[in-house]
Amino acid sequence: MTKPSLARNPAMLATAPPPVMEARRWIEGVEFPSERPLLNVSQAAPVEVPPQEMRAAMADAILSRPDSHLYGAVLGRPDLRAELAGQWAAHYGGSVSAENVAITAGCNQAFAATIATLAGAGDEVIIPTPWYFNHQMWCEMQGVRAVPLPARAGLLPDPEEAASLITRRTRALVLVSPNNPGGVEYPASLIAAFRDLARQHDIALILDETYRDFHSQTGAPHDLLQDADWSDTVIQLYSFSKAYRLTGHRVGAIIAAPSFLSEIEKFLDTVTICPNQLGQIGALWGLQNLGDWLAGERREILARKDAIVAGFPALAEQGWELLGAGAYFAYMRHPFAQPSNEIAPALVEKASVLLLPGTMFKPAKDPSGARELRVAFANIDTAGISTLFDRLKTLQF
Amino acid sequence: MTKPSLARNPAMLATAPPPVMEARRWIEGVEFPSERPLLNVSQAAPVEVPPQEMRAAMADAILSRPDSHLYGAVLGRPDLRAELAGQWAAHYGGSVSAENVAITAGCNQAFAATIATLAGAGDEVIIPTPWYFNHQMWCEMQGVRAVPLPARAGLLPDPEEAASLITRRTRALVLVSPNNPGGVEYPASLIAAFRDLARQHDIALILDETYRDFHSQTGAPHDLLQDADWSDTVIQLYSFSKAYRLTGHRVGAIIAAPSFLSEIEKFLDTVTICPNQLGQIGALWGLQNLGDWLAGERREILARKDAIVAGFPALAEQGWELLGAGAYFAYMRHPFAQPSNEIAPALVEKASVLLLPGTMFKPAKDPSGARELRVAFANIDTAGISTLFDRLKTLQF
Repeated sequence: MTKPSLARNPAMLATAPPPVMEARRWIEGVEFPSERPLLNVSQAAPVEVPPQEMRAAMADAILSRPDSHLYGAVLGRPDLRAELAGQWAAHYGGSVSAENVAITAGCNQAFAATIATLAGAGDEVIIPTPWYFNHQMWCEMQGVRAVPLPARAGLLPDPEEAASLITRRTRALVLVSPNNPGGVEYPASLIAAFRDLARQHDIALILDETYRDFHSQTGAPHDLLQDADWSDTVIQLYSFSKAYRLTGHRVGAIIAAPSFLSEIEKFLDTVTICPNQLGQIGALWGLQNLGDWLAGERREILARKDAIVAGFPALAEQGWELLGAGAYFAYMRHPFAQPSNEIAPALVEKASVLLLPGTMFKPAKDPSGARELRVAFANIDTAGISTLFDRLKTLQF
Repeated sequence: MTKPSLARNPAMLATAPPPVMEARRWIEGVEFPSERPLLNVSQAAPVEVPPQEMRAAMADAILSRPDSHLYGAVLGRPDLRAELAGQWAAHYGGSVSAENVAITAGCNQAFAATIATLAGAGDEVIIPTPWYFNHQMWCEMQGVRAVPLPARAGLLPDPEEAASLITRRTRALVLVSPNNPGGVEYPASLIAAFRDLARQHDIALILDETYRDFHSQTGAPHDLLQDADWSDTVIQLYSFSKAYRLTGHRVGAIIAAPSFLSEIEKFLDTVTICPNQLGQIGALWGLQNLGDWLAGERREILARKDAIVAGFPALAEQGWELLGAGAYFAYMRHPFAQPSNEIAPALVEKASVLLLPGTMFKPAKDPSGARELRVAFANIDTAGISTLFDRLKTLQF
């Protein structure tokens, strides 16, 4: 005797399943020919492990440091908060102290905690499109409306257009720079214009800088933290995952006003108690010891971006268009009549390529996503990029 | 020029700060006399590190297993899900497969994900009091009403009383057994009665068994999973933190219907992407290798409980009452006129004891919490319990 399934939160039922897991299912059980192995450019994730010295430091912590196994503070380890604050103050040229920093179980949790603290059911958050789908999903399952702000020329959002979308329910503007999925770096002046707009309306500017370590510019990418009152408006998010290859350890951060972090603490306490300790120990070791190494990583990622730009004319001849390239991503317009959500799964068998369709990065009502594809090129080296282009340029649909 | 702080989610603002962090602040900067060191019985947390062999296995994974550093599946490692399912099926005598298991970043996240999937703003969840404060906090910040069901004789909740609280907005009944903070073990028949009530109303029974490894009974503590249709109603939560001393690694689990876990996957993806890999590797190693060791741990915790019961008459003479003792906790009624939320912080200076007041485990409107205190006795050995009682029995307020 089966009975109907349990009543569920309608907001959760309305939320689409995770795109990255859906894409993983496309390759389940698929045998790739040995002469054409899979090129997985679907998820933004380093495929290599952290440097040997860092792994040794982490293994040593497991063996010899009791605190690596015990509960820690909800907002994170004081040593890590202080180190990040010091480096932030130096890099961005502003005032940032340990009390401005919370450590989270990855940058997605940083976003989730921030939204939950700012907005309740019925409130609104403005997010440029193409957007990072997990941002939209989290808002939707919380009953918070993700209001799309379509990117314009150069995949840049327009502050004036954003202003026209602000209502009395708006609680935040969200920027991701360098952008996922678009790959573009927002100019400092554009970021400042969004900050001004947010401040004028007493709403938050959430600035997700997950990919900041791979910015093409070496100095500070904006001057927001140089403003003495930055924390009345700005909430910055960061991830240790990409820079230090710690994806499997789940460590991110929020940089904000201490009074805001007191609210964040409630969320983090009830959701995870504390960030896992070993990931934090690794992140601190990375911050303190891997500056030169990370500079090399950045050069390598920038070289891969250059390979994308240099190789693109071969695709452009076939009608492809490169909309953005930077950080970990190239965002492209394809020349086919078929929609991207049919092209992407078909590419697995047809070209041994796994990438994500633009439909995953746009609202369902927006037809432009069907013309677009995202390539997470940081996952493959320049030879891999050349192979990828060889496979894409001969495609027929 | 400072401006008013950002508009925030009113549900978050209304939520009290985390009790465990508040209690930690009571001892900040306090110097304890060397002849009377701090007895910290505030948080339910093993104070020892995992066994040496387990730490060695985890350190080895950091050094030699690339997957310990990379993103994994949202619902957890397939090997851990399968192992837990097999052990559950054997212990509870029911049908549990890997598809019934999701791994989470600790058991608090298991609860948060479950509630978010079942209930939206305005919905209700019935929770016996005294309750685990993080359960109430999560509901409140989500706009879900935590409806208190006061425990009756023996700190047991009454299913008929629960039935009278069910409305059309009720989405779940929550039971924690062995109970935090009460320490009592719910009889199998009582758990089954709550399951029947939940099923009759098409709502979920959430059964949090974080402390199941320390149950005084060796066999299955209930027969819910022996019911072929168990997953139409029952959602079971588990924590690896206490059994395997993995508190700092954040690993928990949800045992439920696969269709329910498909919804849970959306929450876990947007909040943490995946549970951290090393914690999962440790948890699997523990499940596979620490059965005998854990049996010894259980005997030790049960011996501490016996020490609580055996020593209590000295407190009873002073007017104290033991309301419940089991799992990690003793829940007591004190004899003083002052409320527990004044007694608990005062005990830091007065007796070098850190424990939590009953007010933290009851709704603000319920006056009974002022008469009660929770002792997390698993944190101290039998000698420590004797010292604790010596300090408490001479107290004056």
